[in-house]
Amino acid sequence: MTDRTGEAGGRGVARKLIESHLVGGEAVPGREIGVRVDQTLTQDATGTLVMLELEALDLDRVRTDVSVQYVDHNLLQTDERNMADHIFLRSACRRYGLWYSKAGNGVSHPTHMQRFGVPGATMVGADSHTCAAGSLGMLAIGVGGLEVAMAMAGEPLHVTMPEIWGVRLTGELPPWLSAKDVILEMLRRHGVRGGVNRIIEYHGPGVASLTAMDRHVIANMGAELGATTTVFPSDERVLEFLRAEGREDDFTEIVADPGTAYDLADEIDLSVLEPLIARPGSPGDVVPVREVAGEEVHQVVVGSSANPGLRDFASVAAIVRGRQVPPQVSLDVNPTSRQILVDLTRMGATTDLVQAGARVHQAGCLGCIGMGQAPAIGRNSLRTFPRNFPGRSGTKDDRVWLCSPETAAAAALTGRITDPRDLDMDPPAVRLPRRSSVNADMLEAPPPANGGPRPELEKAPSIGVLPELDPLPDELEIPVVIKVGDDVSTDEILQAGARALPFRSDIARLADFAFTRLDEGYPERAREAGPHAVVGGRNYGQGSSREHAAIAPRHLGLRLVLARGYARIHWQNLVNFGILPLEFADGDDYDRVEQGDVLRVADVRDALRDGSDVEVRNVTRGETYRARHRLSPRQRDLVAAGGQIPLLRERAAGGR
Amino acid sequence: MTDRTGEAGGRGVARKLIESHLVGGEAVPGREIGVRVDQTLTQDATGTLVMLELEALDLDRVRTDVSVQYVDHNLLQTDERNMADHIFLRSACRRYGLWYSKAGNGVSHPTHMQRFGVPGATMVGADSHTCAAGSLGMLAIGVGGLEVAMAMAGEPLHVTMPEIWGVRLTGELPPWLSAKDVILEMLRRHGVRGGVNRIIEYHGPGVASLTAMDRHVIANMGAELGATTTVFPSDERVLEFLRAEGREDDFTEIVADPGTAYDLADEIDLSVLEPLIARPGSPGDVVPVREVAGEEVHQVVVGSSANPGLRDFASVAAIVRGRQVPPQVSLDVNPTSRQILVDLTRMGATTDLVQAGARVHQAGCLGCIGMGQAPAIGRNSLRTFPRNFPGRSGTKDDRVWLCSPETAAAAALTGRITDPRDLDMDPPAVRLPRRSSVNADMLEAPPPANGGPRPELEKAPSIGVLPELDPLPDELEIPVVIKVGDDVSTDEILQAGARALPFRSDIARLADFAFTRLDEGYPERAREAGPHAVVGGRNYGQGSSREHAAIAPRHLGLRLVLARGYARIHWQNLVNFGILPLEFADGDDYDRVEQGDVLRVADVRDALRDGSDVEVRNVTRGETYRARHRLSPRQRDLVAAGGQIPLLRERAAGGR
Repeated sequence: MTDRTGEAGGRGVARKLIESHLVGGEAVPGREIGVRVDQTLTQDATGTLVMLELEALDLDRVRTDVSVQYVDHNLLQTDERNMADHIFLRSACRRYGLWYSKAGNGVSHPTHMQRFGVPGATMVGADSHTCAAGSLGMLAIGVGGLEVAMAMAGEPLHVTMPEIWGVRLTGELPPWLSAKDVILEMLRRHGVRGGVNRIIEYHGPGVASLTAMDRHVIANMGAELGATTTVFPSDERVLEFLRAEGREDDFTEIVADPGTAYDLADEIDLSVLEPLIARPGSPGDVVPVREVAGEEVHQVVVGSSANPGLRDFASVAAIVRGRQVPPQVSLDVNPTSRQILVDLTRMGATTDLVQAGARVHQAGCLGCIGMGQAPAIGRNSLRTFPRNFPGRSGTKDDRVWLCSPETAAAAALTGRITDPRDLDMDPPAVRLPRRSSVNADMLEAPPPANGGPRPELEKAPSIGVLPELDPLPDELEIPVVIKVGDDVSTDEILQAGARALPFRSDIARLADFAFTRLDEGYPERAREAGPHAVVGGRNYGQGSSREHAAIAPRHLGLRLVLARGYARIHWQNLVNFGILPLEFADGDDYDRVEQGDVLRVADVRDALRDGSDVEVRNVTRGETYRARHRLSPRQRDLVAAGGQIPLLRERAAGGR
Repeated sequence: MTDRTGEAGGRGVARKLIESHLVGGEAVPGREIGVRVDQTLTQDATGTLVMLELEALDLDRVRTDVSVQYVDHNLLQTDERNMADHIFLRSACRRYGLWYSKAGNGVSHPTHMQRFGVPGATMVGADSHTCAAGSLGMLAIGVGGLEVAMAMAGEPLHVTMPEIWGVRLTGELPPWLSAKDVILEMLRRHGVRGGVNRIIEYHGPGVASLTAMDRHVIANMGAELGATTTVFPSDERVLEFLRAEGREDDFTEIVADPGTAYDLADEIDLSVLEPLIARPGSPGDVVPVREVAGEEVHQVVVGSSANPGLRDFASVAAIVRGRQVPPQVSLDVNPTSRQILVDLTRMGATTDLVQAGARVHQAGCLGCIGMGQAPAIGRNSLRTFPRNFPGRSGTKDDRVWLCSPETAAAAALTGRITDPRDLDMDPPAVRLPRRSSVNADMLEAPPPANGGPRPELEKAPSIGVLPELDPLPDELEIPVVIKVGDDVSTDEILQAGARALPFRSDIARLADFAFTRLDEGYPERAREAGPHAVVGGRNYGQGSSREHAAIAPRHLGLRLVLARGYARIHWQNLVNFGILPLEFADGDDYDRVEQGDVLRVADVRDALRDGSDVEVRNVTRGETYRARHRLSPRQRDLVAAGGQIPLLRERAAGGR
């Protein structure tokens, strides 16, 4: 499957992007590098905190080429806090010089690609699917909000140089298959940890058969493999995309040099793939659709940044056209953006969908982030979304499957999981317009740099403040309040969704949701314990980039995580919020620790400084484990200080 | 304004409808009559309880001509309970022989009018806006869910015969005005109590200038005047409407006889009206738009059963076409039904709306019932909805205004309250299609009457059970736990919306919301007090028909309400749930009672039987008040038994 090959010969796209933006370190896998950041992306679930951080930094104006604040996550407006967020975010855009994409304008990733994506540029985003912009030959990395704030302030992104994983595509997809099946094949082969500390770079003759928006599907869900990011070349298909968006001037060709060798290699023959589906619980649990065909389906949801393209919706419309969704099935369609809704409508596809029985919702993330569309307990819901971590849908004991638009449409018609090739019809023939219905009026440009007095931030009482964080004690002797298994996602550590998300600025209240998807008792035990530790398995903190999964347990006293391995963004978020993330040197020691054990780390600062290893004493059992910290000197200071926020405060107090 | 004129000469439409369905009593104002019920309407917020009542009745199959269950209120699906409701309601439709209109198909009132409305028929609905069907010459009355269940079981509707109020329309509406301005004029003149114990019957030459859907706007918001219902004639415009829906065969002409005299009379010259708007807090606080022009607006919402017609949306689209909603304004469009969305789309109007910056939502009630779309605190929101009771939007301290689609569109463009006549453009010219895009596939017909074994009810744990209710004690000596003012709505007694509505089947939890819009302390005080009383002002319990506003306080121990006057539906709901509703004989006594006073009613059963007056002793102050009960013998038994549910249970236990 995966071969390690030596780096030799020409440079690939990822390497070119990194080297052209390198401002610190050496681009050798495992070393920390600094990368200049051209663009930033924030959304409303993460953005309010970012804007409070800009305030703490006393930033005059963002120093990036382009920074855009999207409102796409929290759109239900079940109470007044939601619209208060929008007003606050817009005022921050006016104050700090960001673009503002208002509620209902569209999902950040595809909208950004359409309006702002530039081949060759770098971007950080406070959203784990930021990597989707790799579809245009960008180096786009999802990070915690604090790092986005620092990037806006002109700081480089510090990141561990990943290995570059060349995946060669050959052949062309057969009828009824689409890009989603390609990324599901990657997940079938490699699982949710397959991409950790890697950049996935697609190349080879099969790439040309995929449109830029198809590549978005694949790059977006690179996050589900745990990859640092994904890149595609910027080629003829990218030019075609930019031309359709009226932005051909932004095109630059960026392709891998002939003979590029990658750190690792894999190959997929597109022509032999078959429709795939991820079973409930994990995007990595992928099987052929035919193996699970026949299961009853009660809900089908089409949309999200994982299948955002006009073709995705138009294909579903073409399949259901003139047919009828049965009464027990809810077919929900979440248009990606206003632009895509307009194009879909002009094609007649909106009418086809509605006539077939679809519920067409406002443009946005909606059910993908658990904002509505929660399925019934134990009933199968097929979604074109990127993630199905337990409970992410808003329903405990949910049964959410991930699949292509074609497979979703087939289930919507039959009421059962169905291989779309078994529908008694011709494959959908979708003809997309050459030019998109571009309407840039819906994005508010930042005010001119010297445009008079700076607007004030408009803060309703619900906006909250940055939390107070104290430094890390130099001696930790603290109980393990919860021990969790492998692949625990940030959705399980701190759920988003309609119950919790409205409290995203009220940390004390939000903390009541910490770990409750896994163990209802955690918040109470943690409050009793005060300073405490968490023990995790492999790939701890996969999924969403939300900082709240670090802040909320931190508020309850979390100071130390000891795990078998970490997902990149959450690891960085722990560091950013002053929580010490240690890794078992011997993974088997994981089995020796139990909830309730007291762990001791003595002379923390010295221990971190003296090398990569730290001794963790299990006081309860009288054992000692070796653990690694992987912190750079910069990061050691960050953890010791209690995180980035106390440092920001110091900086602001010191008059910068 | 309102003249009392003697009933004489020919019969009006309302009288014809009543007399043709009279099965008990005499149609004299103030007397209880029994009316045969041809159709019923339920929605999901009230329907689950109705279905549990059908189960308690052990009903075989509904005995009405047509009974339809709509799912239109609770569409956000923020957790699993919502879809569990849909599954339960559908199973009940299959079991008891109802039509099922699935989530997203449309708002009940206009959808019912389009698919099922029949001139000359009677209908009861578990929704206060059921009266909208008066637009087709139906006698349609909003009632509590229990009475709808009884009607499904073949029982007549018992109602106090109202006075019939003839409102003569002359002239035609000027450009930029529409039906909403007519009903706002009625509210401006008569306020929210103006229609209590009355049927409003529109007649005169001006009626012909209003389409059937225009009449729906006026009939729908008759509920806001407190009217028992509203009727229009069934004439050429109704035939035109039915023809467009492919149902001309359902047409019957029903017009007032020449020389009909009404119990009361009023007259409106349409040609002299100007754009009107209801100020925040009450649908009855109506002023000309020009008087409040210039106030900043942050949200504009178009939709709901108060402005459900294709023309309403198409007019907004025509006004905003080629223009842009400014960034600080959210323009939200809630299509009434899939059919209207399809027709709107075919006209090109959906594209016009989206291009101008609108958020187009799924078809349903949404913000009108506080399911999302909550405005920011203190920011003006203009809505084409029927109601703006404080907090109904989901936001405490909201500022919701009610207006026509034309006034709403003007504000969406300017960001300020604006008389639409002041827009620098020609009035919108909207040409509606002659035939609607009828698609009846989206409604599931009941199974055939003898179609094999009856489907089982599908009850998730969240569906709950009917509450246990004990008989009324024969001696009440109980404290007043809350005293409220005039025109308190059921939204204030028991809010709907995204916070409370999901608990509609969990009475114990729902009770935590009782009266909290007015006084956060009520639930705790009531729990401490146990059996207790509430003192109310005039028009107590106006607005929504929700039974929960009776059930939830009843669960906390409410046994007696003593008020200056009642809204009809809530009064009946109190009776249905075994709460004794008394009315001060001398309204000034209201001022003599305070929260905390202990009230005594001795020998309750005898007191109710012996006449229309009851003595209420204020033990705390040593005073006695005379109070009226207005209960028929049937209703006295109901209250004494603890309400309809214990009676249903007895009936079921007795094998019927």
